[in-house]
Amino acid sequence: MKLKIGIDIGGTNTKVGAVSPDGEILSYSSFSTQIFNTELEFIKVLTEHINKIKEQFSLDQIEGIGIGAPNGNYYTGIIENAPNIRWGENFNIVKLLSENFKYPIKLTNDANAAAVGELKYGKGKNLKNFIVITLGTGLGGGLIINGELYHGHNSLAGEFGHINAVVEGRLCGCGKNGCLETYASATGLRTTILEMLNVQKVPSVLRNLDTKDITSKVIFDAAVQKDQLALRAFNFTGKILGEKLADIVEIFDPEAIFFFGGLAEAGDLLIEPTRKYMEANLMPIFKNKVRLEQSGLINKNAAILGACALI
Amino acid sequence: MKLKIGIDIGGTNTKVGAVSPDGEILSYSSFSTQIFNTELEFIKVLTEHINKIKEQFSLDQIEGIGIGAPNGNYYTGIIENAPNIRWGENFNIVKLLSENFKYPIKLTNDANAAAVGELKYGKGKNLKNFIVITLGTGLGGGLIINGELYHGHNSLAGEFGHINAVVEGRLCGCGKNGCLETYASATGLRTTILEMLNVQKVPSVLRNLDTKDITSKVIFDAAVQKDQLALRAFNFTGKILGEKLADIVEIFDPEAIFFFGGLAEAGDLLIEPTRKYMEANLMPIFKNKVRLEQSGLINKNAAILGACALI
Repeated sequence: MKLKIGIDIGGTNTKVGAVSPDGEILSYSSFSTQIFNTELEFIKVLTEHINKIKEQFSLDQIEGIGIGAPNGNYYTGIIENAPNIRWGENFNIVKLLSENFKYPIKLTNDANAAAVGELKYGKGKNLKNFIVITLGTGLGGGLIINGELYHGHNSLAGEFGHINAVVEGRLCGCGKNGCLETYASATGLRTTILEMLNVQKVPSVLRNLDTKDITSKVIFDAAVQKDQLALRAFNFTGKILGEKLADIVEIFDPEAIFFFGGLAEAGDLLIEPTRKYMEANLMPIFKNKVRLEQSGLINKNAAILGACALI
Repeated sequence: MKLKIGIDIGGTNTKVGAVSPDGEILSYSSFSTQIFNTELEFIKVLTEHINKIKEQFSLDQIEGIGIGAPNGNYYTGIIENAPNIRWGENFNIVKLLSENFKYPIKLTNDANAAAVGELKYGKGKNLKNFIVITLGTGLGGGLIINGELYHGHNSLAGEFGHINAVVEGRLCGCGKNGCLETYASATGLRTTILEMLNVQKVPSVLRNLDTKDITSKVIFDAAVQKDQLALRAFNFTGKILGEKLADIVEIFDPEAIFFFGGLAEAGDLLIEPTRKYMEANLMPIFKNKVRLEQSGLINKNAAILGACALI
């Protein structure tokens, strides 16, 4: 049995796992990403975690190491200016790790890792052309084209979060206005409900909460209890997302779009309005052709599965 | 030397050519697409034209037949409800032609044919990931991904013309409002100048013309002569197109975007404002990375080259 090692480098924690060919995580460990001062300190600890896996299994079982990280560049092996990693600005993790391990080592960004994880272990197993949209703090995306992860010319493909959704809309962290992720993300949903609390008069359980306690999870719970304002916020989020997905479907003609990440756990509360507005904005020839579904990897350690699926 | 036969079925004329491996058209003929009453009448005449090529060259020189047609479906071989072909609603041209010729026969739509033509014979020869945008009566597109034409799940990929460019904007023939092609196309440019003639007070040579005589070519000629209103119309067209191309670049991360078709012959008059607005709407990491250029097949018989490049 050949094992793959998947590494998920998040701003908070780094997770390391060994994965069997059918997607079972046989070994797992994690450590804080934030305690280091230099790249080399990080590599040292990461190496120790990988070595523990090597001790557990026979050496020739390990096929390679896949890494998912924000701003991970597939072509250069560099994590470029990752927003939450303060100890490494242009961190050539593939090069540094290659000095310690002679396996194939591949890097990509977290949304691409989710897409390739869906392809190998999730609902994309038998599909050739689909899109994964990650809905968390921001909105990311990965494209599977002809059964392979599509990287683009500079390893930058899939930045769905920064296409324009609203002319002169909300200011985005990227410097532009109206980016899709300022509306369709956990952060965007929270902004939407705060705006609605201000301007709409509908009663809502959320009015009793302190602003700082209104998280996307709290909004979700309220919507499940049929809170009208929370439902309106999900409907609005689905409207913005659905309108843009209509454009994306007309460009890509995918078989399916899967949603992954914290906000995707809202399931039909988000997917139903998204589908409604997407279909309403499609040319007739595209209508009722695309599956919109939650990722098959929700509640699994998808980041590790995705990373190791690079190998 | 192996020859390919390329067939371009337009609403007005059908063109048939034999093409050498380096893209030289060695034999050429055409006939009116409009004189037929049935699919079989059309196939009969098309077969005669192909037979003439067979007589000119030795039989084993012919490698296959590629066909470009509006709404041509690569997977089914059917021309589906082509807007200008009244004698065949769902015309299975590949099946019918296969009864007469034993070569491989492939069909795609005209914009995809332009893209694959650019790949084999134009500026895309050494590129892996690029987009061709056709700017004629409407706006079409073809995607080259990993060095191959991307068809999508239903052979519908590349409908860039119908992504939303302006909320509640111009009514499109597809039934939606604000589609990109209602602005960025020869038709769209004409609508723009007619609107501007109504509401803007700038002097313009176009004010002396009868509305029906104001074609995209006339607007181009006026712009070349520095007519301020014509220049404003090109700038506005480039603004709308550039804004949407920014979104497309963030999704695809292509190496280049090539413009083909009647309006693309305007060259820098259109490409300069398009580039300016595209760059202004890109995230910093994408800026100054994408080539925007006229197709390398402008003034060549690109439709035939594109069709035969399918083989």
